[in-house]
Amino acid sequence: MARTAGSDGSRTEAAIRDAAVELIARHGHEAVTMRQLAARVGVQPAALYRYFPTKEDLLFTLMREHMQALIAAWRSARPNNDADSIAALTAFITNHIRFHLERRHATHVSNMELRSLSADRLETILALRNTYETALRHILRQGADAGLFVIEDTALTAMAIIQMITGVIVWFRPDERLSVDEITQNYLAMTLRLTGAGAPGSNIYVRQDAEFRTG
Amino acid sequence: MARTAGSDGSRTEAAIRDAAVELIARHGHEAVTMRQLAARVGVQPAALYRYFPTKEDLLFTLMREHMQALIAAWRSARPNNDADSIAALTAFITNHIRFHLERRHATHVSNMELRSLSADRLETILALRNTYETALRHILRQGADAGLFVIEDTALTAMAIIQMITGVIVWFRPDERLSVDEITQNYLAMTLRLTGAGAPGSNIYVRQDAEFRTG
Repeated sequence: MARTAGSDGSRTEAAIRDAAVELIARHGHEAVTMRQLAARVGVQPAALYRYFPTKEDLLFTLMREHMQALIAAWRSARPNNDADSIAALTAFITNHIRFHLERRHATHVSNMELRSLSADRLETILALRNTYETALRHILRQGADAGLFVIEDTALTAMAIIQMITGVIVWFRPDERLSVDEITQNYLAMTLRLTGAGAPGSNIYVRQDAEFRTG
Repeated sequence: MARTAGSDGSRTEAAIRDAAVELIARHGHEAVTMRQLAARVGVQPAALYRYFPTKEDLLFTLMREHMQALIAAWRSARPNNDADSIAALTAFITNHIRFHLERRHATHVSNMELRSLSADRLETILALRNTYETALRHILRQGADAGLFVIEDTALTAMAIIQMITGVIVWFRPDERLSVDEITQNYLAMTLRLTGAGAPGSNIYVRQDAEFRTG
């Protein structure tokens, strides 16, 4: 649906998306009705169907665009020279936390409502997720090959890191005692230790039976 | 409602709980109706109300008992001598992963449906969560005091670990290439590195500017 940016149509469409994300995060996709959504936006239900013929079309659009925006954000954030695995991992963690904290409701919807998608649309969303997660697996593998990271299982480590850093949205509130930057620094230090690369200046406890490699 | 264990009543109640957990995990609490639940269990809707006067009573019971069972499981699993922080953390991770993998649907419900609780019931569930998370914070603090762990922020580290290890339920399937024990070993190695304590035999990369303490 090509529309002039800023036209009444595009403003209505944006209002529908915003209201939908909020309502679905609050009540769950299945419980939200198109009638309820139209009332929230202040339009007739028929107006919604012009933009989104079904409720699942709307959900799918929200989830697809969330993942596409995440992939685009990572493509802008990643270092040009990907040879430095620690710099790449740092950029990945920083971008991921900032992106999701700015979109807490949309992230809840994306994480919870895979269950509400039909099989072919689920496949599309999972393929986008895989594209994004592959970027992290690539960083981990490259760092392990270079002897910078200790990775027992690349896929498992990528999942563990993504779930740990996405978890920030569950407890973070804007009046949190820590700023987004402080939280990011903290999670970065934990992630670097988790991958076997201590954060600069961190006080690493080393077991006597461990083998060492120094940078 | 005191009933003889194994009586028709207690079997019906157990069937209601099992069906409710599955339906809520699939559709979201708000979308599930008592009528739909009764049909799934094979009883009249009126029979449900004898056990759970409202749908929220049922949800609250499921969420409260989930947390109580988790706390009880941890009390059985924790080492008698809590002076060994690495053993305590190992027991915590192992218990947490096993408990949640055995209750994937109930864990989804517990994580997603805080939004559906009234304020006083939400407070009860959050207090139980806090009791459980305090156990982990205690382990982390004790280990840091003993010089075994590197913890920048105890509360943040506890949240990060819990979200990372609970995340296993999102992707784990019984036909997974790794067994529960292998997954637990993997997550344990990552957690020990994250907390600054390398897993036995792990190949720790140490920056040249780091300070060392050996066990």
